[in-house]
Amino acid sequence: MNQNNYCVIMAGGMGTRFWPLSRINRPKQFIDILGTGKTLIQQTFERFAQICPIENIYIVTNEQYKDLVKTQLPTIDESQIVCEPMRRNTAPCIAYANYKIYKRNPNANIVVAPSDHVILKEEEFIRVVNVALAYTEQHSDMMTIGIHPTRPDTGYGYIQFDEEQKIENSIYRVRTFTEKPILEMAQQFLASGDFVWNAGIFVWKLPTIMEAFKQHLPEIDVLFNAEINNFDTPEETAAAKRIYEVCKNISIDYGVMEKAKNVCVISADLGWSDLGTWGSLFAISEKDANQNVTIGQNIMLYNTSNCIVNVADDKLIVVEGLEDCIVTENEDVLLICKKQEEQQIRQIVMDVQEQKGEKYI
Amino acid sequence: MNQNNYCVIMAGGMGTRFWPLSRINRPKQFIDILGTGKTLIQQTFERFAQICPIENIYIVTNEQYKDLVKTQLPTIDESQIVCEPMRRNTAPCIAYANYKIYKRNPNANIVVAPSDHVILKEEEFIRVVNVALAYTEQHSDMMTIGIHPTRPDTGYGYIQFDEEQKIENSIYRVRTFTEKPILEMAQQFLASGDFVWNAGIFVWKLPTIMEAFKQHLPEIDVLFNAEINNFDTPEETAAAKRIYEVCKNISIDYGVMEKAKNVCVISADLGWSDLGTWGSLFAISEKDANQNVTIGQNIMLYNTSNCIVNVADDKLIVVEGLEDCIVTENEDVLLICKKQEEQQIRQIVMDVQEQKGEKYI
Repeated sequence: MNQNNYCVIMAGGMGTRFWPLSRINRPKQFIDILGTGKTLIQQTFERFAQICPIENIYIVTNEQYKDLVKTQLPTIDESQIVCEPMRRNTAPCIAYANYKIYKRNPNANIVVAPSDHVILKEEEFIRVVNVALAYTEQHSDMMTIGIHPTRPDTGYGYIQFDEEQKIENSIYRVRTFTEKPILEMAQQFLASGDFVWNAGIFVWKLPTIMEAFKQHLPEIDVLFNAEINNFDTPEETAAAKRIYEVCKNISIDYGVMEKAKNVCVISADLGWSDLGTWGSLFAISEKDANQNVTIGQNIMLYNTSNCIVNVADDKLIVVEGLEDCIVTENEDVLLICKKQEEQQIRQIVMDVQEQKGEKYI
Repeated sequence: MNQNNYCVIMAGGMGTRFWPLSRINRPKQFIDILGTGKTLIQQTFERFAQICPIENIYIVTNEQYKDLVKTQLPTIDESQIVCEPMRRNTAPCIAYANYKIYKRNPNANIVVAPSDHVILKEEEFIRVVNVALAYTEQHSDMMTIGIHPTRPDTGYGYIQFDEEQKIENSIYRVRTFTEKPILEMAQQFLASGDFVWNAGIFVWKLPTIMEAFKQHLPEIDVLFNAEINNFDTPEETAAAKRIYEVCKNISIDYGVMEKAKNVCVISADLGWSDLGTWGSLFAISEKDANQNVTIGQNIMLYNTSNCIVNVADDKLIVVEGLEDCIVTENEDVLLICKKQEEQQIRQIVMDVQEQKGEKYI
């Protein structure tokens, strides 16, 4: 295993769309949403432990989840948990990790990934990331991993690659990024054959990404650079607070990737899902003869079809006569909701917060 | 209050139809099924405490529920709890109470009632029972309370009264008893105007009912009579066991009332329900603008109609997009079931017992 390989797992999200399974104090990445016995961040960590030395894996998260990370990933050292004092989207998150890694290894070759996605084809994922790391080690390009699209999903970002600029294997130069297109556009993208989904997984050498920040987000680079001597000292928490209080809220896609010229994409078929919705969980899950997905130990269904029942503990759930529903319970909250109305869950969470208080959020 | 008035509350039932609210170790009479803050047996007890001195109220229950009775009715003495060693239907239950009361007051004037029914018109109920008690004190008749029928319910027993033999007020001689008729018959009963529902509430003087047992169920009378000296002694438990092991399983309706000639009925409008089904609970409960019944502190409904949501504790329940469903949770069991399929609940309970064991029953 290449000692130069590093990994940054972004684990600061709140994931309210999976409420009540995900809760403010235990967001999606920290729950076993697939019922595999491992939480999403544990699965993500174990994937990358096959690519990087464990001591080179950094978790960037919000301060409030530090203890959850320590509990769920007991093999990492506290120094590998990078705590953001507030949420500022992915660009500051990556800049922070960059400077932390820079102090240990200025030539690190890094893969950055969300903590809460699912990858069903793990071996292929490892192969593809290793191809990407081998490429970025040799080239000053930024690499994204693009997923073969299977439907005109309007919830994902799309990357158009340049078929005429195939570099090697499945690596192409990127032509455009498009965030969440309208349906007609997504249909065209799918039909054209030169678009892939943006999985939010990036591979680059540290000098390459640091140079990109200096060029495209210099104000962020300046903030972190000014505090570099405080990182890995008792002053770090205060330093991070000073940075984040004035740092702008911006995604790495919008702030860097869409502006840079030296961007490649490696297209792959990974069985990937961002698990952004109950529908996406339903789509990737194994179904019974009546197209039901059940995650839990004691679920009994009668005359029920196309439902997803997800219950954390060993409670007995008996469902009779439901169709196209989500049934999920976590601690002190039970939600029953039509699958096609799941976008209402955000509104429901707001209503609950207003009417019942934070306790149930 | 007449010191001669006694009350026997029958509280041995298991009520599996309300599973999972009712459980083997806490049947329907011991739960606050209406969400009033009081269990059904507590409500029943408080009604009769306005008719009889508290020390004259006897609770006949199964041994396994003795502690529940003591906890839920702390003002009664342990000697007022009559424990049956096994279930033998209502005739032995009443015979046992008769002999216990006989030792204290051979001229007791008694009202016998189930513990798990609901009476919405409490003042009228008290008035009617007092009228019945006043009548039985003077006459050697057995009195039943008949409920004005409001629909051709095939789940109830019907009592035909003899319009030509009106005794006084709303008291008539009984002509026939009919258990659970078919729909066409129930419709005729309703149309005829001389049928009332059998509420299973009986009023009689002790000498009258004891004479009726001697005449119609002499084998049961002999069994209890033989052990009378053991009642209210440390030998009572063993004596009851000897009786019940050989005693036949028979209802007071079938064993006595349908055979006797000296039976009257007092017809009344009491807002009565036997709460035999979720449907009957739904029928008597207050509904919101969308015809939903909610029993629980934290229930939020969206696009939901004609549902009954009943949750024991302070759990938050959010329901979106359901129609005509029962949603109920108790301890470690959640049941969601179409209202019109509630007769399936018995089968579900059997399946659960077979597949998951007694734990969830």
